[in-house]
Parts: sequence; C-alpha cells; structure tokens
Amino acid sequence: MKPPYPPDWMIIEGMMTTMSPLATDGPTDHRLNIAPMGPVVDPTFHHFVFRPFKTSTTYRNLKGTGEGVFHIMDDALLIARAAVGTVAPGPDMPIMPSHRVRGVVLANACRYYELKVTGVEDHEERTTIRAVAVGRETLRDFVGFNRARHAVLEAAIMATRLHLTGAAAVLAEITRLRVIVDKTGTDAEHLAMDELQKYVEAHSKRAGDEK
Amino acid sequence: MKPPYPPDWMIIEGMMTTMSPLATDGPTDHRLNIAPMGPVVDPTFHHFVFRPFKTSTTYRNLKGTGEGVFHIMDDALLIARAAVGTVAPGPDMPIMPSHRVRGVVLANACRYYELKVTGVEDHEERTTIRAVAVGRETLRDFVGFNRARHAVLEAAIMATRLHLTGAAAVLAEITRLRVIVDKTGTDAEHLAMDELQKYVEAHSKRAGDEK
Repeated sequence: MKPPYPPDWMIIEGMMTTMSPLATDGPTDHRLNIAPMGPVVDPTFHHFVFRPFKTSTTYRNLKGTGEGVFHIMDDALLIARAAVGTVAPGPDMPIMPSHRVRGVVLANACRYYELKVTGVEDHEERTTIRAVAVGRETLRDFVGFNRARHAVLEAAIMATRLHLTGAAAVLAEITRLRVIVDKTGTDAEHLAMDELQKYVEAHSKRAGDEK
Repeated sequence: MKPPYPPDWMIIEGMMTTMSPLATDGPTDHRLNIAPMGPVVDPTFHHFVFRPFKTSTTYRNLKGTGEGVFHIMDDALLIARAAVGTVAPGPDMPIMPSHRVRGVVLANACRYYELKVTGVEDHEERTTIRAVAVGRETLRDFVGFNRARHAVLEAAIMATRLHLTGAAAVLAEITRLRVIVDKTGTDAEHLAMDELQKYVEAHSKRAGDEK
C-alpha cells in the first residue's frame, strides 16, 4: 500500500454488515445493511480502515453505532449482486447474530471480524473510519485462487464506476473477462457476468434516453 | 466449466508437489518437484483433473508414482516465481512429509490435498490425469479476495505464454495490472511484478538478439 499505510497492509474485498443506530426518541429501528466493502487491513487482520462516502448507509451506521461485522467471502456472484443492487437475507443468504458486537453475521462467509470503531474522520465527502477486530471466527475454507471469481469482482468494480468511465468501456472489459470465466469458472460466475452486463446495458440505455 | 466438465467444476490455481519415481535399477532417486498447477476440481475438492504437457516433470512424476500433493496457496509471489523459474524448499518455503501419499507438503500453504492418480490419458502432447483426494488438511486461512494478488497471478500466467503473445503484449498488461497492485497490494506483490517484468524484458532482449 502507498503511504500513509504501512507497506504490508492491503485491501481485501468482502461484505460488511452494519445496523442502523437505535432511535432514541421512538421505537427501536434496528435495520440491517449489507454492503460490499474493501477495507485496508494489516497482515494480522486486527486493524481495519474503511473509506465510505458520507452518502452511504455503512458510513452512517458505523458512525452511529460504532460497530460492524466484516466478512471474508469467496462468493463473487453475491458480491457482484450487492455491488450493483441490494442483497437481503434469505435461504441463499442465511444470517446469525454476532456476539461481541451488536450485529449480524452472514453465515455463508468464509470468516468474519467483529469490529469496534476507533476513529472517524469525516470532514471530506470520502470519510476515513478506523476500527479494530474484537472477535474473529473462521466458518469454512476460502475456495482459493479462481480466476473466474476474480474476473467477476473486477467486472463488478467497473460496473460501480460506470458513471465515470461510460458503458462502452465496461462492456468491453466484461467481454474480455468472460473468456476467463469460460475457461475457469462455474455457472455462478457466468450468471454474475450476465447480470452485470444487463445492469450496464440498462444504464447505457437510460443514459442514451436522457440525451 | 465447458463440457466435458460438469458446470459446477472450476479451475483452482495452486502448487503441486510430486516425487520422481523410485529408480528400480539403481540408488533411490526420490527428488521433489514443485510446480504451479491449475487443476479442474469438483465443488467438494474430491476429484482433480490435471492437464500437464508430456514434457513436464509433473506429468512424468504423476504417471510414474501415481501420487502427488496439491496446495491451495494465497502467496502470489511464490506462484509467480514458480511460474517463470524454479522454487526450492528453504527458510521461506518450509516443507513437511505427507502421510497418506509418499510426498511433500508445503507448510506455508493454506490447505492441501493428498492425491492418488486414477487415470492417465497421454496419447496427445497435452495429457489428462485424473486423481482423487485421499487426504486433506487446512493449515491456515486464505487471505481472501485481494485484487493485487490476482493481478500478479494474471501477469504470471501471461509471462508463461510469452512465446505465444510476444513480450510487448505482456509488458503492456503488466503496466495495466500494476495500477491494481499500487492500490490494493503489499510489497510482496510489487516485488512479484518487478520480477515478472524483468523476466519478460530478458526474454524480449534474447528474442531480439536472435534476429
């Protein structure tokens, strides 16, 4: 990583769960938010630095509650869906309560870190939120290096930057990355690419309509 | 995966250890070979299909001994080094004996599968070797989705195909992938990219000299 981070810190892409703050003047409104996040972490996964925008629910929840759960996932389809839309608990995404913080664990994760916020810098639109792990649990093995799942991840990240790059660049990249999915992936990664492509094409059509 | 593989099988990139067959007419010559491999695996990691070329040591050893150990690694620098050169056991790469097959385990792996060969098809230059796991062990957590490590993996794969694509295409891709390493990786991934670039440039120079 570049300064101000030590050179052995890195960004890990995964999924974050946070709860909206307790309403102090009314009924408890404790709602779950699930979002893809790529925090900077130290090699021991004790220190986490998040850079959410002020407009994001994750920012509001981390600031409001001081707690969250970060999950190491190997399900690229789920991350892709969360990146361009919303995902919710259900049969495909079971949840369970966390114990060391007030929050929710995605039970299909490979492992998770229960986090307490130690600092919030939010003078700028893109904030810096520091947290430390107060609990960690391994649930199952991460699949390993699979090129198709990473291709999906790269396509999903590009799809979220669509407004900056334009649709044509993202579609070209999806076409390039599909070759890797064909060679190394399962049906899940093909489905993820189909869904990302549809998302980008729909955006492209909307952008065209607006002209 | 495309037929003949079931749609939920995938390719996992990792490291294979094999031993050369016992010499029947002389002293025991039980030498260790360590090579990067990307077998096709079923979702439970019971069935493995390797596609080594007949010229490879892994092919000769798997055919000769009927055994090997496949490792799930998250060390992209090690895989890159093995892809363009050779790696050997030492302080940075400790080894230990495997128990269910006659072989060697890379102790820094995340987990490993002890394999018995069940079929060899080698009429063609690129062979098909089927194996099943007779043992498996998890040693530590896989780091998770880190874009820099996958960028190194993609660059390493391109470097091994240098003779097909030419150096310029590989160097252009390395330049593109370095942006991801800068953003998300550690010193190890920077070092891997430096070493891959040097390898490609050296090859490029040799190819130029031959003209």
